Amino acid sequence: MNSTLLENIIKPTLVLDENKVRENIHFMAEKARRSNVIFRPHFKTHQSREIGRWFRDEDVRQITVSSVDMAEYFIKDGWDNITIAFPLNFRQLPQINELAQMINLGILVENIEAIHALGSLDTPLNIWIKIDTGLHRTDIEWNSPRKLKEILDTSEKYPKLNINGLVTHAGHTYSAKTAEEAVQIHNQSIKYMNDLRQFINKPHLLISVGDTPGCSQIPEFSAIDEIRPGNFIFFDAEQLEIGSCKPEQISVALFCPIVASHPERNEVVIYGGAVHLSKEMYIHSDQPCYGLVASLDSNKGWGELLQGCTVTRLSQEHGVLSIPKTMMDLFHPGDLIPIIPVHSCLTAHLMRRYLCLDGHMIDMMPI
Amino acid sequence: MNSTLLENIIKPTLVLDENKVRENIHFMAEKARRSNVIFRPHFKTHQSREIGRWFRDEDVRQITVSSVDMAEYFIKDGWDNITIAFPLNFRQLPQINELAQMINLGILVENIEAIHALGSLDTPLNIWIKIDTGLHRTDIEWNSPRKLKEILDTSEKYPKLNINGLVTHAGHTYSAKTAEEAVQIHNQSIKYMNDLRQFINKPHLLISVGDTPGCSQIPEFSAIDEIRPGNFIFFDAEQLEIGSCKPEQISVALFCPIVASHPERNEVVIYGGAVHLSKEMYIHSDQPCYGLVASLDSNKGWGELLQGCTVTRLSQEHGVLSIPKTMMDLFHPGDLIPIIPVHSCLTAHLMRRYLCLDGHMIDMMPI
Repeated sequence: MNSTLLENIIKPTLVLDENKVRENIHFMAEKARRSNVIFRPHFKTHQSREIGRWFRDEDVRQITVSSVDMAEYFIKDGWDNITIAFPLNFRQLPQINELAQMINLGILVENIEAIHALGSLDTPLNIWIKIDTGLHRTDIEWNSPRKLKEILDTSEKYPKLNINGLVTHAGHTYSAKTAEEAVQIHNQSIKYMNDLRQFINKPHLLISVGDTPGCSQIPEFSAIDEIRPGNFIFFDAEQLEIGSCKPEQISVALFCPIVASHPERNEVVIYGGAVHLSKEMYIHSDQPCYGLVASLDSNKGWGELLQGCTVTRLSQEHGVLSIPKTMMDLFHPGDLIPIIPVHSCLTAHLMRRYLCLDGHMIDMMPI
Repeated sequence: MNSTLLENIIKPTLVLDENKVRENIHFMAEKARRSNVIFRPHFKTHQSREIGRWFRDEDVRQITVSSVDMAEYFIKDGWDNITIAFPLNFRQLPQINELAQMINLGILVENIEAIHALGSLDTPLNIWIKIDTGLHRTDIEWNSPRKLKEILDTSEKYPKLNINGLVTHAGHTYSAKTAEEAVQIHNQSIKYMNDLRQFINKPHLLISVGDTPGCSQIPEFSAIDEIRPGNFIFFDAEQLEIGSCKPEQISVALFCPIVASHPERNEVVIYGGAVHLSKEMYIHSDQPCYGLVASLDSNKGWGELLQGCTVTRLSQEHGVLSIPKTMMDLFHPGDLIPIIPVHSCLTAHLMRRYLCLDGHMIDMMPI
């Protein structure tokens, strides 16, 4: 980054450090290789063809997306093995049928109706059965093997359906208070999945897991066949809070102009609100946190986190930062300040593009 | 709306009832006319040229926006009297200078540095001084007339600056528990503004207020010169909770496909998450609310609110609905369900377009 580039940032801008992103990708790809598991990263985090290609440089050939539209977008860039990690949307069956004619498509299923609907399409499909290992958002509960067996039996009527295996998203690792707890929840999920596979006696079924806190913390993967983390390429304040990453691994920051300073209440106001950062938050020391504050570095983009500085309130376009009294002098209207988002996936989704440190822009899929 | 149109909705879609929007606009425009105050609606809610024209049909000629980009977008559709209701962003001075050469531009100021910066531009500008009447987000506190006087005195050095008046956004009406409380906060704000104007002895300064809860509830406006509400054209679950509107005045709903049903925990899962509704929420009866649920009506789009049904959790693309046990039969995977967003401005911002009941699409400004 250079000072001209910084000067040209006039409004909230999502800045991306390509080297850090590539390191985060390499780290996870390498760990997957070492553990001999398939690495099928979730592309909903970045939603960008260019960043997708950085995964190809690490020999990734299989990906996860969260919608039919996103599958279509990445197919156009040559990806031909995609899992749509979302419960089947019956209203998009014709689109799914079309995509399945073009590529090796995986669909997630959590009920018998979905098996009947997909089985009646005229193309082969890979089916993953969704197992709930504790998140309780959707899926078949891991301790209900009867329901799972029913689905497996039904699917046998449809020769075009290839039951690939069992997937889980142990998203309850996000509520972990420590890295140890995240690992424990992750391991517990894997145990449940293995118990279930053993109980139904289908050893050929693959086990696929996907959650950044677990996948980041585990030193080696075992007893699973595939991982599907997404957020780990960027990380964010929430992952830092859980203990999934170190501050220097965070690879995106929202650069915001300061528009007001209020020393009388130790607050600074930025141009950067809910439409830029999203309203995702967590509570830290009894205080809401909508983002962390980093120092500006005209060379590296941003540097160390500024301890004690937090985004404590957000409205549509404004953000309010709580600043320790002794640091108020550092912030002046007109300055830029890098904010580490709480949930980088949602911030990226809102911003729709990335500014790289070398000045080039990366686009995301249109919405 | 007809059944073909409903069938064609295959993914989360923001549906808009044009008649209701036009009624909401008419109601507020009429009240402003009756009270003889300037109606300068905030266009950040809809961000759409087409909806902007519906205001022209009500003789609205002066508008409010929240960013320089938004001003530019509406200028291209012929709007020539625009207030950018956001603290001056020093990094956009050249853009502001350019726009001020084209139209009658109003800028909000809350410190002396902004007066110096704007005074040095080569075009005349309308200045509004931001007064904090209790929201404590930014602005000069209403009980600090010294600071206000300093700004006024400084501005006299710059003949191109026309001090229009004092603005406040009594956004703390949003935390009101009842309509009465919202009205009380709104009236208190107006009293503070009038006290301040009297104290500094500048009776020619206009007083401009802008918050939907207050502006909706007050039967007639008095002791003010201008109103700038935005959200009232759509309303939403939050406004309903505060008491600013009746359910039948809400004019947008996010239509979401149901993707799973979990009778064992009285929950239904929809395709519709944080990237569609935003993570804005409020607590109702100790339960988080991320949206309300309405019945589907193939004629009117959506009908009555379904009592006891609430969106209680959101992840990136999923929403989880809590449903009374006796109503679980009403929800089936593949069905569409209309969700009333908690904060319609943020939902509209995320969705970027509207589907009208007659089938035509309305675009928003590009981001």
